[in-house]
Amino acid sequence: MIYFNNDYAEGCHEKVLQALIRTNNEQTPGYSEDKYCAAAAAKIRKLCGREDVAVHFLVGGTQTNLTVIDAALRPHQGALCADSGHINVHETGAVEATGHKVLPMPSVDGKINADQVKKAVLLHRADGAFEHIVQPKLVYISHPTELGTLYTLSELEALSAVCRELGLYLFMDGARLGYGLMASGTDVTMADIARLCDVFYIGGTKVGALFGEAAVIANPALKEDFRYIIKQHGGMLAKGRLLGVQFDALMEDDLYFKISAHADSMADKIRVCLAELNIPCLVGNTTNQIFPILPDSVLEELAKTICFTEMERVDDGHRCIRFCTSWATPEENVRTLISELRRLCK
Amino acid sequence: MIYFNNDYAEGCHEKVLQALIRTNNEQTPGYSEDKYCAAAAAKIRKLCGREDVAVHFLVGGTQTNLTVIDAALRPHQGALCADSGHINVHETGAVEATGHKVLPMPSVDGKINADQVKKAVLLHRADGAFEHIVQPKLVYISHPTELGTLYTLSELEALSAVCRELGLYLFMDGARLGYGLMASGTDVTMADIARLCDVFYIGGTKVGALFGEAAVIANPALKEDFRYIIKQHGGMLAKGRLLGVQFDALMEDDLYFKISAHADSMADKIRVCLAELNIPCLVGNTTNQIFPILPDSVLEELAKTICFTEMERVDDGHRCIRFCTSWATPEENVRTLISELRRLCK
Amino acid sequence: MIYFNNDYAEGCHEKVLQALIRTNNEQTPGYSEDKYCAAAAAKIRKLCGREDVAVHFLVGGTQTNLTVIDAALRPHQGALCADSGHINVHETGAVEATGHKVLPMPSVDGKINADQVKKAVLLHRADGAFEHIVQPKLVYISHPTELGTLYTLSELEALSAVCRELGLYLFMDGARLGYGLMASGTDVTMADIARLCDVFYIGGTKVGALFGEAAVIANPALKEDFRYIIKQHGGMLAKGRLLGVQFDALMEDDLYFKISAHADSMADKIRVCLAELNIPCLVGNTTNQIFPILPDSVLEELAKTICFTEMERVDDGHRCIRFCTSWATPEENVRTLISELRRLCK
Amino acid sequence: MIYFNNDYAEGCHEKVLQALIRTNNEQTPGYSEDKYCAAAAAKIRKLCGREDVAVHFLVGGTQTNLTVIDAALRPHQGALCADSGHINVHETGAVEATGHKVLPMPSVDGKINADQVKKAVLLHRADGAFEHIVQPKLVYISHPTELGTLYTLSELEALSAVCRELGLYLFMDGARLGYGLMASGTDVTMADIARLCDVFYIGGTKVGALFGEAAVIANPALKEDFRYIIKQHGGMLAKGRLLGVQFDALMEDDLYFKISAHADSMADKIRVCLAELNIPCLVGNTTNQIFPILPDSVLEELAKTICFTEMERVDDGHRCIRFCTSWATPEENVRTLISELRRLCK
Repeated sequence: MIYFNNDYAEGCHEKVLQALIRTNNEQTPGYSEDKYCAAAAAKIRKLCGREDVAVHFLVGGTQTNLTVIDAALRPHQGALCADSGHINVHETGAVEATGHKVLPMPSVDGKINADQVKKAVLLHRADGAFEHIVQPKLVYISHPTELGTLYTLSELEALSAVCRELGLYLFMDGARLGYGLMASGTDVTMADIARLCDVFYIGGTKVGALFGEAAVIANPALKEDFRYIIKQHGGMLAKGRLLGVQFDALMEDDLYFKISAHADSMADKIRVCLAELNIPCLVGNTTNQIFPILPDSVLEELAKTICFTEMERVDDGHRCIRFCTSWATPEENVRTLISELRRLCK
Repeated sequence: MIYFNNDYAEGCHEKVLQALIRTNNEQTPGYSEDKYCAAAAAKIRKLCGREDVAVHFLVGGTQTNLTVIDAALRPHQGALCADSGHINVHETGAVEATGHKVLPMPSVDGKINADQVKKAVLLHRADGAFEHIVQPKLVYISHPTELGTLYTLSELEALSAVCRELGLYLFMDGARLGYGLMASGTDVTMADIARLCDVFYIGGTKVGALFGEAAVIANPALKEDFRYIIKQHGGMLAKGRLLGVQFDALMEDDLYFKISAHADSMADKIRVCLAELNIPCLVGNTTNQIFPILPDSVLEELAKTICFTEMERVDDGHRCIRFCTSWATPEENVRTLISELRRLCK
Repeated sequence: MIYFNNDYAEGCHEKVLQALIRTNNEQTPGYSEDKYCAAAAAKIRKLCGREDVAVHFLVGGTQTNLTVIDAALRPHQGALCADSGHINVHETGAVEATGHKVLPMPSVDGKINADQVKKAVLLHRADGAFEHIVQPKLVYISHPTELGTLYTLSELEALSAVCRELGLYLFMDGARLGYGLMASGTDVTMADIARLCDVFYIGGTKVGALFGEAAVIANPALKEDFRYIIKQHGGMLAKGRLLGVQFDALMEDDLYFKISAHADSMADKIRVCLAELNIPCLVGNTTNQIFPILPDSVLEELAKTICFTEMERVDDGHRCIRFCTSWATPEENVRTLISELRRLCK
Repeated sequence: MIYFNNDYAEGCHEKVLQALIRTNNEQTPGYSEDKYCAAAAAKIRKLCGREDVAVHFLVGGTQTNLTVIDAALRPHQGALCADSGHINVHETGAVEATGHKVLPMPSVDGKINADQVKKAVLLHRADGAFEHIVQPKLVYISHPTELGTLYTLSELEALSAVCRELGLYLFMDGARLGYGLMASGTDVTMADIARLCDVFYIGGTKVGALFGEAAVIANPALKEDFRYIIKQHGGMLAKGRLLGVQFDALMEDDLYFKISAHADSMADKIRVCLAELNIPCLVGNTTNQIFPILPDSVLEELAKTICFTEMERVDDGHRCIRFCTSWATPEENVRTLISELRRLCK
């Protein structure tokens, strides 16, 4: 069985593993106050092109989302996001468990836009009884989105401008950020993100690490006492250096970007094959997730050798599924998938 | 500098590391639904002497405490514990952040007893206006305690009996459970704990793992939907197999117990030296933490070669400090510490 | 200026006021443990046709909603409701502030149906990763709805049956329950509601009282410790007898129903006029709220003498507004409104 | 039976009742946006001697406490208070239910002092791992305290100075504020309180109103969006004018102060009697609560005609009880109590 069902099926990249092995017997201070976290943070600040961002390491994505949002909001404030946003549909109400309403908006291909945000905020402010309604204060986007799509630089700039105009925070969930930054056709850089977002995170779990997300806080208003909030929500790793060691390795010699590019190029090969076979996709994208729509009969056969994710039934005879490549995907597996698709869809 | 300041300064035991290396490239299902978690859980059930306990793996101690307590309590219920209990003093209000009051009680050497619990509960129930007061529903104890002390079997049995009589849950924080189970003089076994507690956890972070705690749920009332609560609080590790692999290795060939015994024996050597030198301790115990009271002048010298934890000032000339041994403490370091103590306290 | 903008503009019905005056100097126990609360509860139990329901008095509707829902749910559970449901759009995230996600569903005329609930629950249970998603456990409906519409008995029976089949609680927000029970054409009685819902409340604030809602709990699983939850959320009125006195007066000689019928009949007169004038309404209904769609020019004139609520813009030249009658609406005011409408819409 | 068990046994003062009757049929805007709330707020601002304070009306004390504290704190922050503080022992964890730890400190006669606060905050800041511990950010005091005692002006000034020096908020629970301001020997005025506290409230429930507390916010940092937080916690009364009407009546012609003075003078008569009879009290005070310690045999007899509150057992033969006078206490009742005490304690 070859697995294309997700991007967290393996352990970590060999170089990350070597770094963990090499440092295993060292004694360090706990709670991310060690030299490895410091070194990794320094590299991230450099990538961001600004020395003033705060960098905090957390274990996982849901944890990072709930910690950032809880740290940013007062009790009556909520987070605007796409209706398909991870915080809205796939985190068991983690944000609500901190007391805050998630405010979903209709999305196109997993994305929301500046106009929507502006309208939602102005509608709230125009309402004669607005203290009866949750106050929008933060915009959550994911990049890549849940559907593997990307914001363009101008879209990001417009979102950022609206947020600043209206006094909202812009928060980017970058669980798959590497795959977004290295995708063909994107015009968004890490420095753009650090410039346009108030806070974002660089995903490690899905991009070469055993686990770990690096939260980058650009807005000074969000920096104060952030470590307290991490601790309070159970996110402060005793052996925090494990996060530092991994991100230090990932950020060394562009490893994070090289392995992200690999995953994207593996996905590109699958996309080319799908196009050749005239297999439609739920959405066009250039990152490591692909959402083809295939006949049930094909899927039945395919499932004998390939593991994929079921997304939704499209019509009586077709379902949308997901293929995921990752930093760990061997080219050989992609070749096998492609030949299987060719065999079954001819 | 030799570190005796805590028991989480190194990475993990060599055999745990080897298991992580060996399995690194395997593809497994996520979220602890893999074969390694299943194997580790099976070993833990066997150690508990009962097949009916549920085993869940979490990343850290605070996370486990808040998850268990939030899963167990209704909104108006609180957790009784020692005033020195970790949930009361060292978790940034993590339990309160889930909405529940921690109900501290005076403790002796870090321990509370069955009579105290009974009195507190009966006082609550006798109160004419008891819906104005948080309802005690869970008793949190740590074993070893924050002061390295241990409950005796009869003390545990009494606590358990009172909890069952009054309809409370007994929850044991076992962040350092191995060091407790292998301590000289203890008459408490893992099977006793599984029999007497409604829920407890076996600490990995401080006992040989990179990270990880194994929560063991014995009371059926606490089992339902526990995975939802883990996820909601950001505690569900994507690559959950990392927890399974580590606990599987720790539970293989009694590794967990052997390395715990090592730490305790290293601490015993230090205790013998302190006794010889007539250095008093804050509390008598037999686990891996020691709390000597030493003159400031000695501590000033000692600090040049030995790293220890400051606890509190005892009087104008003396402070209580903590030495911690661990699974990773080399005997050589203990010999150095002992010779330093002898040199300075003669 | 004549007010038709809401149903809470005046104080209370004369008989309620007299009861408050009559009892003002009496000394009673606090916190609703007085004889008036007992008497009112007895009358409500009789109206419900069952002696086994628990009755609790709270001050307001949002307070009652958040208290009931928080008391009913475990942390990972959420409340299904219409997207237009009061808890979803008009309570500043009060339910989320207790940690629970509101799960809105598309609604028709403010109503949801049994099929929707069944599909939502089965979809959740069928999902391969359902602990990543909030678990639906309670269905919140309002009767009358936010749009003044009513469930039929068979609709309620179907909702109740699905909830019982799937293990969910059915909770009815009856902020305007009187207006619903007395509306022309309804086949739903208080006894039906007490039989079909697990918990509901009888609104006083909008139906003759100064303030107050009577929560009726039919499902034994929801009764335990309910007073603790009231107190914890700040809803336990010190002089609780004020709630008892008012509900006792309202339930005496069918006062609650007589004054509700008055409001509905006043609204009926307006509806007849609107029909005569061919003025469309957003929704057809028979309770005390009416949602006509009128030309901007008419509304501009009307606003000079009549106070109404703005709902939404329908098209370039028309807006939907709300007229509310209440127990306090004088027939003379209705006549004035009707003659104004006739004058302006001819 | 004569009731001295609490100060909320009756309805409201005759003048308050008359105001409610007089305004009953008026139509006003809801949610405290009416002219009565505006008038009452204006009178309160005048009493405070400053025009810049924000005044909000809430229904009850627990509700006000949890709303103010939740509005003031970030998630990791807690409220310092006396161990006997109402929020710590008598509100069913209402503050914790908003996610915040209450941080009790030892108290003398229900009071805490500036030194304690300073030490607690500096200890927190000095701690090497302070993000592991809840951050003190607000000091909660009650005036009068739970034991009827009062802060002196210099004590209040010291508390205020320490809070400002350290960046904490000072919040005064004034559930019985009138009884404090009119007590013999106090040197604290309403203007002092408005000058020294960041936020406080003027209790109505126990001082002449049917219900209601007037929260006064002096610190601009606490004013923003306060109405949202009221609404979110279910504290926004639909017919908010009921609060305005009552406070407007209470603040007219010093009614609030005159009736408070009455209660205190009634208590003074009881205190004189107790002194004559050499009956000790738990604590010395000059407000409307008295805590005599009496033999069981006396209490058994006394209970036949007088209703009092049981406080605690003092020794094998004695219990501490509470007598409460109020704005409604007739002098005749006091005479009866005194003659009973004389008869039984001779």
